[in-house]
Amino acid sequence: MTVPADRPQTGTQLPGLDPQLLQRVVVEGVEPEIDAGRFPIKRTPGEPVVVEADVYADGHDALAAVLLWRLQGDDAWQEAAMVPIGNDRWRARFLVSEVGWYEYTIEAWIDRFESWRLELSKKVGAGQDVGSELLEGAALARDAVSRSGGRHRADKRTLSEYARAIENEAAPLGERIARALSEDPAAAMRRHADRSRATRYERILRVLVERERARFSAWYELFPRSAGTDPTRSATFDEAAALLPYVASMGFDVLYLPPIHPIGRSFRKGRNNALTAEPQDPGSPWAIGSEDGGHMAIEPGLGTLDDFKRFVRAARRHGLEIALDIAFQASPDHPYVTEHPDWFRHRPDGTIKYAENPPKKYQDIYPFDYESADWRALWHELKQVMEFWIDHGVTIFRVDNPHTKPFGFWDWALDDIRRRHPETIFLSEAFTRPKILRRIAKGGFSQSYTYFTWRNTKAELTEYFTELTQTPVREYLRANLFANTPDILHEYLQRGGRPAFQVRLVLASTLGANYGIYSGYELAENTPVRPGSEEYLDSEKYQIKPRNFDRADSLAEMIRRLNAIRVAHPALQFDRTLAFHATDNTELICYSKRTEDASDVILVVVNLDPFHMQHGWVQVPLAAWNAAPDRTYEAIDLLSDERYYWRGEWNYVRLDPQARVAHVLELRL
Amino acid sequence: MTVPADRPQTGTQLPGLDPQLLQRVVVEGVEPEIDAGRFPIKRTPGEPVVVEADVYADGHDALAAVLLWRLQGDDAWQEAAMVPIGNDRWRARFLVSEVGWYEYTIEAWIDRFESWRLELSKKVGAGQDVGSELLEGAALARDAVSRSGGRHRADKRTLSEYARAIENEAAPLGERIARALSEDPAAAMRRHADRSRATRYERILRVLVERERARFSAWYELFPRSAGTDPTRSATFDEAAALLPYVASMGFDVLYLPPIHPIGRSFRKGRNNALTAEPQDPGSPWAIGSEDGGHMAIEPGLGTLDDFKRFVRAARRHGLEIALDIAFQASPDHPYVTEHPDWFRHRPDGTIKYAENPPKKYQDIYPFDYESADWRALWHELKQVMEFWIDHGVTIFRVDNPHTKPFGFWDWALDDIRRRHPETIFLSEAFTRPKILRRIAKGGFSQSYTYFTWRNTKAELTEYFTELTQTPVREYLRANLFANTPDILHEYLQRGGRPAFQVRLVLASTLGANYGIYSGYELAENTPVRPGSEEYLDSEKYQIKPRNFDRADSLAEMIRRLNAIRVAHPALQFDRTLAFHATDNTELICYSKRTEDASDVILVVVNLDPFHMQHGWVQVPLAAWNAAPDRTYEAIDLLSDERYYWRGEWNYVRLDPQARVAHVLELRL
Repeated sequence: MTVPADRPQTGTQLPGLDPQLLQRVVVEGVEPEIDAGRFPIKRTPGEPVVVEADVYADGHDALAAVLLWRLQGDDAWQEAAMVPIGNDRWRARFLVSEVGWYEYTIEAWIDRFESWRLELSKKVGAGQDVGSELLEGAALARDAVSRSGGRHRADKRTLSEYARAIENEAAPLGERIARALSEDPAAAMRRHADRSRATRYERILRVLVERERARFSAWYELFPRSAGTDPTRSATFDEAAALLPYVASMGFDVLYLPPIHPIGRSFRKGRNNALTAEPQDPGSPWAIGSEDGGHMAIEPGLGTLDDFKRFVRAARRHGLEIALDIAFQASPDHPYVTEHPDWFRHRPDGTIKYAENPPKKYQDIYPFDYESADWRALWHELKQVMEFWIDHGVTIFRVDNPHTKPFGFWDWALDDIRRRHPETIFLSEAFTRPKILRRIAKGGFSQSYTYFTWRNTKAELTEYFTELTQTPVREYLRANLFANTPDILHEYLQRGGRPAFQVRLVLASTLGANYGIYSGYELAENTPVRPGSEEYLDSEKYQIKPRNFDRADSLAEMIRRLNAIRVAHPALQFDRTLAFHATDNTELICYSKRTEDASDVILVVVNLDPFHMQHGWVQVPLAAWNAAPDRTYEAIDLLSDERYYWRGEWNYVRLDPQARVAHVLELRL
Repeated sequence: MTVPADRPQTGTQLPGLDPQLLQRVVVEGVEPEIDAGRFPIKRTPGEPVVVEADVYADGHDALAAVLLWRLQGDDAWQEAAMVPIGNDRWRARFLVSEVGWYEYTIEAWIDRFESWRLELSKKVGAGQDVGSELLEGAALARDAVSRSGGRHRADKRTLSEYARAIENEAAPLGERIARALSEDPAAAMRRHADRSRATRYERILRVLVERERARFSAWYELFPRSAGTDPTRSATFDEAAALLPYVASMGFDVLYLPPIHPIGRSFRKGRNNALTAEPQDPGSPWAIGSEDGGHMAIEPGLGTLDDFKRFVRAARRHGLEIALDIAFQASPDHPYVTEHPDWFRHRPDGTIKYAENPPKKYQDIYPFDYESADWRALWHELKQVMEFWIDHGVTIFRVDNPHTKPFGFWDWALDDIRRRHPETIFLSEAFTRPKILRRIAKGGFSQSYTYFTWRNTKAELTEYFTELTQTPVREYLRANLFANTPDILHEYLQRGGRPAFQVRLVLASTLGANYGIYSGYELAENTPVRPGSEEYLDSEKYQIKPRNFDRADSLAEMIRRLNAIRVAHPALQFDRTLAFHATDNTELICYSKRTEDASDVILVVVNLDPFHMQHGWVQVPLAAWNAAPDRTYEAIDLLSDERYYWRGEWNYVRLDPQARVAHVLELRL
């Protein structure tokens, strides 16, 4: 819409008055918005984007506001009318339906017709003479007709007829008034509103829409080299494929493999992180690179590239996507060291600097120099690594320590990869300070590890997950709640034993639409390398660990059940609706998730004490949920298939860790 | 600083890698910042601007950050080093010293030298070999020398000598290490740090610095037409000048006059807002314009323009600045109505629309049409009105209902006037919804009326003033706490009588560095026009009200004392340090203000109950103030000159409204 030329006026020599000053409406405080629009929010298809803004003007005219949205690249905007929700805040929503990029912004203007209608109705209500007002309304309708352009003949007829009717002094006043206040002209007047002085919000905001799996996924971490029975040699991909049915049977979606590339020999770490390795110690998979190749090669013990491709296909047949570990660093034996010595930092004597966090030394790892003179070639090569594996069927990457690489590298690389491979999912493993963890998440990672493993008490969990799901970080950070990792065996699991593993499993799989475990979890492996450490004894990082998954006390069945519950209940496939509820026992935590239409309501109660029975009362927030306060309703425990009949808000639970650590209840309200 | 040319590299055909991606440091979350820098913050000379930001990078290099600031128009930036205050937040400050505009922003970079020093000291502490590290340090120093340019010969010598010393393998290692870690090179290394890849915050933020009176002022509102003794005729300016000593003796700085322009006759309101006026009813001063002129004329009953100028000079001799009321609207008799009919909205029959808020009608007021075809001429004329009065000695304007005029008008007009008359102060009277009240404040008003009159209980006052002084609104909104206005006689004053007036006076004059009263307050005038109304009976808006200010029960002496306390105590001349303290009685409110160096500490305790004695304990936050917890200290009541000896944090007070409503204590800690 163009600003109409102002009629000729006196004093056209007067300086400094930009017609933009006539845009009376203010649009500010737009949410969601990240860093003044620098970063996009994230969604998956079918999710709503609810946009709010403060919209107001001087005086007391009525306003109209629309949310404009479109797929990036489209010329035309879609419009969704915004509605006021109080205190000058307005709201609208749109649904994203496709993977890709969307844009949204806001436009608002003075709604002269609505202003006129409100005034008219108040004057009529006060019994005042409205003859002049009716003529004004007719004039507004005629202005709309002249704005409407050739394709709106029906509207023109409607509005012209309306104008004639209400200005007709021969007709009874009561009829004219009723007609004036009727809905007849409303739609046409909205369509042809005068938007010549509308305020367009100054920024266009973006949505990155990723596929559903970015929002809802269950991960299983497995070292393929341990998939055999012989602890002295790496298993092959073919042997690892024998575990695919097991992983799939538990209901996982993603099989995440630590790095599968050749492992360096120089300064190889031995068992339990010993400084020197024995001849048959396999080394850490994160010490990437040997004479057998680098990041685009396969550790020979695992097999060949073809073996890997076959493994990927087999996984796919089992409903599993492979996630590879992206660890952008090199062992001293990596081909890059001789081919591109300038991709590393050097000492004055020319030797390459290994990783350090003084006084600690990591002689088996050479970090890249992302600022080297040859940085462009390095950055392109590293991006090429990811594209190589995408070409070989990989759709998901778990990125190791992205916070030790420039943010700009990930911003650029992920954005570029997405544009050609929009189905790619990236998980950030940035165990670092909060602002850095968030900055990485903003920059294009689909999912992020969080501080979940270190949040164990009711207060910690409540505070942290309220932050993650009810504050703006939720717009760009999708938590992936790994209950354990090869680096993190939390004290809670060490002390609490099998019940503790059950507790953390329920928490992870219900608090997080995305969650994961590292193999061995189901066997409640919980011996640290030494007291006070979060490292596993005989860590699989440094040795091959075949496991017997067939143990009777495995948690595999519980995992299977929880994954099945998640698939059957959409409420658990989102984090946005997480809410915590009161209990009268600090060892009992209670929370819920619900679908937007409340058709699926899941309430979880967990006894956080792995040692003792705990009981008490939990509050179902019926009043807040607009449900009748004293009703009786079914509470079906999806873990046990038991049915309870609960009544009102406060209900009694009793959880003995020897029998059950939690209720996962479907509430039939 | 320029980005150095990258050395020639392979793959220069590689697309898409902007060197800006090498800026590893992030600067975000800058405060204070209003609406992404769209609006300036406000200060007065001598006030600090404390700037904080989140500053971080990937990895664990040390960072350096500087706050850049300058007077707008200067080429060169001043720099203030930022220091980390925890959780990746950094802080610095600068002082503004001149009225006008300042700019500030932030630059941050990787501090390689500090990174090196930290690493070196950790390695030394762990007893590791640091021969290579010393050579690296020497290289860093030599790089700095080559960056330093011709004018830094002393630095070059320092750094070259430093480099030689620490790389000298003939010297004892301990000496080399001590030298390496010494402070010798630090200043020079900071001066010549490599900033080629520094991150410059993406926005330049602004400070509007106004003169001290914008921050610290005591206002007295007076209708000059009532300054005589005859209620049937307007007093003149010369007669009103007789009241100047009285106003000045109470210690006010600003004498604020409702509109002094000719008052229209058509539809003139009578006493108590009667629809029709009696022949000698003077009408409302806000119904501006008659055959005697408009906004640039004087109501004949008051005198001539020369009389006004003389009055302004007389006021100045008494230490008073005149504040005029800017009410941009016209009575039906205003010259604009015939000279510029297109500056008004018209009905279809051509008549001009008076002000309405349906179903209410204000037939004595024609609002301007700020969007008319001739809007530019109208806007210029209105700005010209203010400039006219500035030319006649007026330095302060109280603007009536700015929220019924386009925000853009004020943004433009005030900005333009400031640039040529930077000493001008503007007070916004925008009693409207919070977001609009704030938008007006952002747009260039020096001070704003607030919701103070409707905040009477301890909870209300605490919440509201915490919001005003401890949240970001404090950066752009300076509250002016009028205890009453011609439109607002709050129920608290109606019911509470003289003690209530004392209470509200103490609150206004101590909570607000800017505050005011409307004449008659000191006489505790508190009769409403009808029960439940906030309008005065026989409101001075509609009739002339001569007063006898010499009454024995006048609060003039208390006002004088409070104004003197304010002048003597810098703590009360700022709002920023306001803090509320605990009491054990909900009728006792306790708060303090302190100068930044804590040399002046004022603690106020007010009994909010005007009817009954209230007593209890109040907490002086000695621990939070880093004062010894059990010390005895003097508390001097500045209202009564009494001295108390208080001890520790909790101390007893007893306030009987018949004797005193408050303590205003200077604490000698």
